[in-house]
Amino acid sequence: MKAAVGLDHAQGPGWVARFQLTPPSLQDNSADADRLCRAVRRELGVDHCQVDLALLKQLPGILREGGYAVRCVLFRDAGGGLLVHAAPDGTDALAAGLAVDLGTTRVVMRLVDLEQRQVLAETSFDNPQATVGPDILARIHYAEQPGGLAHLQQLIVDGINQHLDGLCRSCRLPTDAVHLLTVAGNTAMSHLLAGLPVRCIIREPYIPAANRFPLMTAAQLGIGANPGARVMLFPGVGSYFGGDLIAGILQTGLHRRAETALLVDVGTNAEVVLGNREWLMACAGAAGPALEGGVSRMGTTAAPGVIDRVRIDPETRTFDLHTIEDLPPRGICGSGVIDLAAQLYLAGMIDIRGKLRPETCGDRLQTIEGAAHLTIVPAEVAAGGEPLRISQADLDSLMRSKAAMYAILETITTGMGLTPETLPAFFVAGTFGSFIDPQSAIAIGMLPDLPLERFHPMGNTSLGGATLALVSREAATAVDAIRDGITYMELNVNQTFMNRFSAAKFIPHTDTSRFPSVPPPRR
Amino acid sequence: MKAAVGLDHAQGPGWVARFQLTPPSLQDNSADADRLCRAVRRELGVDHCQVDLALLKQLPGILREGGYAVRCVLFRDAGGGLLVHAAPDGTDALAAGLAVDLGTTRVVMRLVDLEQRQVLAETSFDNPQATVGPDILARIHYAEQPGGLAHLQQLIVDGINQHLDGLCRSCRLPTDAVHLLTVAGNTAMSHLLAGLPVRCIIREPYIPAANRFPLMTAAQLGIGANPGARVMLFPGVGSYFGGDLIAGILQTGLHRRAETALLVDVGTNAEVVLGNREWLMACAGAAGPALEGGVSRMGTTAAPGVIDRVRIDPETRTFDLHTIEDLPPRGICGSGVIDLAAQLYLAGMIDIRGKLRPETCGDRLQTIEGAAHLTIVPAEVAAGGEPLRISQADLDSLMRSKAAMYAILETITTGMGLTPETLPAFFVAGTFGSFIDPQSAIAIGMLPDLPLERFHPMGNTSLGGATLALVSREAATAVDAIRDGITYMELNVNQTFMNRFSAAKFIPHTDTSRFPSVPPPRR
Repeated sequence: MKAAVGLDHAQGPGWVARFQLTPPSLQDNSADADRLCRAVRRELGVDHCQVDLALLKQLPGILREGGYAVRCVLFRDAGGGLLVHAAPDGTDALAAGLAVDLGTTRVVMRLVDLEQRQVLAETSFDNPQATVGPDILARIHYAEQPGGLAHLQQLIVDGINQHLDGLCRSCRLPTDAVHLLTVAGNTAMSHLLAGLPVRCIIREPYIPAANRFPLMTAAQLGIGANPGARVMLFPGVGSYFGGDLIAGILQTGLHRRAETALLVDVGTNAEVVLGNREWLMACAGAAGPALEGGVSRMGTTAAPGVIDRVRIDPETRTFDLHTIEDLPPRGICGSGVIDLAAQLYLAGMIDIRGKLRPETCGDRLQTIEGAAHLTIVPAEVAAGGEPLRISQADLDSLMRSKAAMYAILETITTGMGLTPETLPAFFVAGTFGSFIDPQSAIAIGMLPDLPLERFHPMGNTSLGGATLALVSREAATAVDAIRDGITYMELNVNQTFMNRFSAAKFIPHTDTSRFPSVPPPRR
Repeated sequence: MKAAVGLDHAQGPGWVARFQLTPPSLQDNSADADRLCRAVRRELGVDHCQVDLALLKQLPGILREGGYAVRCVLFRDAGGGLLVHAAPDGTDALAAGLAVDLGTTRVVMRLVDLEQRQVLAETSFDNPQATVGPDILARIHYAEQPGGLAHLQQLIVDGINQHLDGLCRSCRLPTDAVHLLTVAGNTAMSHLLAGLPVRCIIREPYIPAANRFPLMTAAQLGIGANPGARVMLFPGVGSYFGGDLIAGILQTGLHRRAETALLVDVGTNAEVVLGNREWLMACAGAAGPALEGGVSRMGTTAAPGVIDRVRIDPETRTFDLHTIEDLPPRGICGSGVIDLAAQLYLAGMIDIRGKLRPETCGDRLQTIEGAAHLTIVPAEVAAGGEPLRISQADLDSLMRSKAAMYAILETITTGMGLTPETLPAFFVAGTFGSFIDPQSAIAIGMLPDLPLERFHPMGNTSLGGATLALVSREAATAVDAIRDGITYMELNVNQTFMNRFSAAKFIPHTDTSRFPSVPPPRR
């Protein structure tokens, strides 16, 4: 957990406002709630301001206690503004918010001081729904069993509550002081948190229960913040394009830039957004498991001891491996696999189809159970005492993933009269973006051959976007406009996409002129 | 309870709508809720449509069960539209609404078929809060005691639930079928139903907790309708001008008329609205208890055996009394008192100050405990075997009430450059309006000397307005605009008003030229 960190990128006013109201008199006898709501409407520039019944009951007391000076937590709802909380001004109690990146595998939560706009603490934990199933598919099947959906919802709510409690304790803050929560997750995870049916998400024609979620209260969801706290679930565009991506657009500012830029988030799916302040185009396609932890027995997510960088001397074909925290190697992560493939290709150890070449792989090549395997780390050096190997099947899977990625990029840019190679800015979200070596990704033809400075690793844009909505009115208000402004391009029904996919299943591409910076392989 | 009655005056569409949505496909894969909300937004012509989380959870099942044909109960909220309920089309279950006139003394409830727009049944009952205190003042004092507010709220909620249950049983309708409730009450009663603090309503400067109430759910209030049913409390203008009057404006259509008209509702307070489709001016003033049941020991509310019409032969001074249902007389109601005073004046038995004249009252005049009393009904004819008498104090009280009423009418009309005597239309709300003889009210100078056809008794405008909001979108949507458009004139701080009040404390008025139709009294 980190100490307080300012959020410099939050522009414009936040959600905490202080008002000194004129106390009522015979000449000015509007009702307490109406008096405060008028100030809120003016402050937010909206026509309506809603107040919960529970808060309304307290309002006459709160206003009089503070001599009509009041500190408020505001938020926006579909049709206007919302008074979430009010306290007599002069209170020294913090008003806090919680930003949540609701990942299928991992959940990251950030506690924020809403008024000072500082990060108070941060934590992350494995999504407790993993005990039911590791992936979305398994969880959705489980959710269809009697009581399954309720159990999955309870698991994630309990997990959030436990860690929210820990975050608050670490800051000596009562959980009651948390008045706003923003949650960015993929469509299935968002549905499971809200307890919404998920059955149709994975069945053609892939229909979520909702893309826009109602603004909920913590009490409604059983979340242990202030009962009247509001929970904003980032809206999605469809079953395969969720609120995490909308948060990503918010964080990268794609919707505010004059220049056209591209945002890509890679997991089991590659989700891509292309656009600028005038328009936003999105698509998502199966990228295969190669880029997540799932590739081969040695594939894993980034963690200590995991190979994240590979160099192969093209002359001697000696391997130079780097592991996270320099521990003995025990697996390889997505960025390591891309590095590996690029280096194997440049050293002539795989051909343009990604096939292992016996004439250059030498002793490293073995046939196990009838399939070709390449030894990356011999048994005597590996952490587990077993050699780390990559199979031809793993490499084939990577080739499909990289081809899918390039085909997606080509399809979405071409659709807007551009090419992947002319993008002014290319944002890469998530762990993948932070660890990947763009040069390697270019070498295998996965990313377009752009000058390296145009690639921007963005880190956890889902958490970043969720945080922005907590601390910036402008950002929170932009969310719906971003969502509504997105045109979604369906790839599953796109024949041209399949042709492009086939053409991209070579290193770097059947059309090598698109990759001038990639040298031809050694023979 | 009445049989189904059509509500002819409901114009434009109501709150039930049926949609046949295009089922989703790969080419049109928007989410279930978004698909339905898009149709609702288009239907209502609004930018936003909200759906409760609980309904959202059911929506995928409901839509698929009906092949994407769906019957919806809609409503409007501050910032847009609201999907209150949805069922597969083809359901034969009624969707019902409940209109409530939440009176301090009496509560009237009307069950309505929202789609056919017919009255299904109606009932009324004494406000159960009367066990705590008969009037607003007593209840507010009680509400300030620990647990007092919660107890008062429980009393009225229990009363509503009990009679809602009865209404539904009489129509063989499950209470779950009630999806909308509209409640029109004065400011204090509305606060007590919502459980809002009432302390400041009766203390200078007379500040309600709220004039606009949030749209609540039945579950929030503990009302035994469908838990997701919406409860709309009519908004008020101030402590002395509540939602019942806004409902009255809605019912009389004051806000839609080209001609300026006046609406008056008389109880302990006289509440008056003057206006047309361009502007609305309102004021309220204490009218005294004379016009309610509270005048003298024989005063009562209209009921069988109560004197509601009095004629006195100006020659013989013989009394001709009419009682409700022609039963032996046991009291006199407000309209009877006005008739009595008018006839006493015209027969020369009271003077222009309302004082009993010994020279004309004869044997009917007696001094009891030092005060003058006039016998209306001798003991041998009265229902209770005791003579019915009116005291000089009662008549003085009536004189103050009638003077207050005329002064209010004069003040509000003069304020807009009019006079009471030039009003094109004069609506009289409530029981008072239904029973009063305008000619008698004119004779004592309580109502202006208008041609009789300009007076319109309107019955229960509070219930009527509440019903309109249930069955007409236009009406429900007009409520906030009506409220916001009202300019409230404070009489308590108006010195001119006090002068006018003094001038009106004569029969018919110090300025008799304003009452050309009233003959001079017999001597």
